[in-house]
Amino acid sequence: MTVVLEATVDSELTNFFETQRQRIDASLDVLLEPASEFPTILHESMRYSVFAGGKRVRPILAMATGDALGGPQTAVLKLAACLELIHTYSLIHDDLPAMDNDDFRRGLPTLHKKYGEGVAILAGNALLTLAFKRLSELSAEGVDPTVTLSVIHALASATGTPDGMIAGQVVDLLTAGKDFSESELLYIHRSKTAALIRVSITSAALLCGSPPDVLERMSAFGSSIGLVFQIADDILDVEASFHELGKTAGKDAQAEKATYPARYGIEKSRLLKTEQLDRAMTELEFLDSRAERLRQIAQFIDSRGH
Amino acid sequence: MTVVLEATVDSELTNFFETQRQRIDASLDVLLEPASEFPTILHESMRYSVFAGGKRVRPILAMATGDALGGPQTAVLKLAACLELIHTYSLIHDDLPAMDNDDFRRGLPTLHKKYGEGVAILAGNALLTLAFKRLSELSAEGVDPTVTLSVIHALASATGTPDGMIAGQVVDLLTAGKDFSESELLYIHRSKTAALIRVSITSAALLCGSPPDVLERMSAFGSSIGLVFQIADDILDVEASFHELGKTAGKDAQAEKATYPARYGIEKSRLLKTEQLDRAMTELEFLDSRAERLRQIAQFIDSRGH
Repeated sequence: MTVVLEATVDSELTNFFETQRQRIDASLDVLLEPASEFPTILHESMRYSVFAGGKRVRPILAMATGDALGGPQTAVLKLAACLELIHTYSLIHDDLPAMDNDDFRRGLPTLHKKYGEGVAILAGNALLTLAFKRLSELSAEGVDPTVTLSVIHALASATGTPDGMIAGQVVDLLTAGKDFSESELLYIHRSKTAALIRVSITSAALLCGSPPDVLERMSAFGSSIGLVFQIADDILDVEASFHELGKTAGKDAQAEKATYPARYGIEKSRLLKTEQLDRAMTELEFLDSRAERLRQIAQFIDSRGH
Repeated sequence: MTVVLEATVDSELTNFFETQRQRIDASLDVLLEPASEFPTILHESMRYSVFAGGKRVRPILAMATGDALGGPQTAVLKLAACLELIHTYSLIHDDLPAMDNDDFRRGLPTLHKKYGEGVAILAGNALLTLAFKRLSELSAEGVDPTVTLSVIHALASATGTPDGMIAGQVVDLLTAGKDFSESELLYIHRSKTAALIRVSITSAALLCGSPPDVLERMSAFGSSIGLVFQIADDILDVEASFHELGKTAGKDAQAEKATYPARYGIEKSRLLKTEQLDRAMTELEFLDSRAERLRQIAQFIDSRGH
């Protein structure tokens, strides 16, 4: 009986993910230039990476936050799609030969393998630039211009430096093959991965007009669930196969990357992941049943590294 | 007597450029993270390229536009510095091995030669991201939030795709070594170079609260002077030495780039440049003596390719 119930919940969550993914993909299709628009190779390559079959974790978190806090759905969906544009840009650049040098992503050749390095760098730049352009249009959806500016500011901070995604990626790149400290490891994971996941939640909360105490709790939830995500990723890189990952497995160990398993071993990494999940769940308590979907997504993010 | 007068004007213009450059550099110093901030290599590398001795043409055009149209000086200066951050990002990425593969820029090793390709790509990304972050702070200088959003939108459009800087760079990259049409050449120059120069002027005009007819004239002025700039650049690549350019000369011909001299020869390129300068000057007529500084800067941009 328990098994049947769990299967029901899983299938309900799977359906939810699928429905949200379709909404996000439809929004992305509108935000991106058509592939037929000149210069076609640029627009084709942007779409190749955006529609390569990502899980849409960040936009789904933004939309679930919007639902939990009662935000404007159309604006949150547009924000959600912009988050995916930024995430895709970061993956394209991370895969470059000068970075992680990956040949596969989501089971497909990486963008630079298919279109060349120059186009890949430019397609990444174009996705980042497009995200800011589309974000600046949020007030056309009825969002107060000051709120739109605060969303742009939050996203630029979380994806930049000194404690955003680019800063984390620099330290990730430079510690590869070297000894690394506990604080460097935490800095990398917080900046490289958790910052964008956190801002996916806080930027949606900003659109909902959340007061400072709510923003603070949602930020803490986002930080913790972002760490859960990256620790799970680290564990998967050790334990999963190419087929399961859609990309070459064991790359972190090969490149001697600063990861949780490299520092703590698999078992302690799992414990630290559970600790962060618990923290994340505690932060959501104030939302009672409104946060049910966010809790399910958090569980899903955690389960990737079981 | 004439000679003396000309020398006086030149020296006055030189002093003006120097004063403006100092103001812009002081503003950039505040906008950028300190080099001592972790991760230091990222902040050092961003500053290395930003303070490598650029002429600051785009910010100076923005400030002269602000003065001509009576705009808010502090906000225009901040915008001007953001334009230079974006310009520097584009230079760093253009110089990469996967793009133009240049070893020198402004007489110094290019960023990837000094810090490696990975850091160079990330430093470029960080400068672009920082520009949008700082632009989103413009309303702290008293700018109406709706105007700030229109400035962000204009900049993201001019530096993105389908007719902004990144789109132009893609076509520039892909036509190298191939036959190119007149319309492809014009597209590359308009998008790759003129779009950012044009938006340096129009975004400043937006901050001044200019009505549509003024914006249109300033946009036309910007387009023409942007073309003058790029044709002059093409001519310099043929005629100037490494010492004069601060970078390897003759690279365009070597890479069989789509340039005006390659299409029309040097003499006709000069004529087409003069034609664009005349158009630019005509667009400024409505501003009478208020545009005197803009006219001087336009003359200076043209004189680079004499």
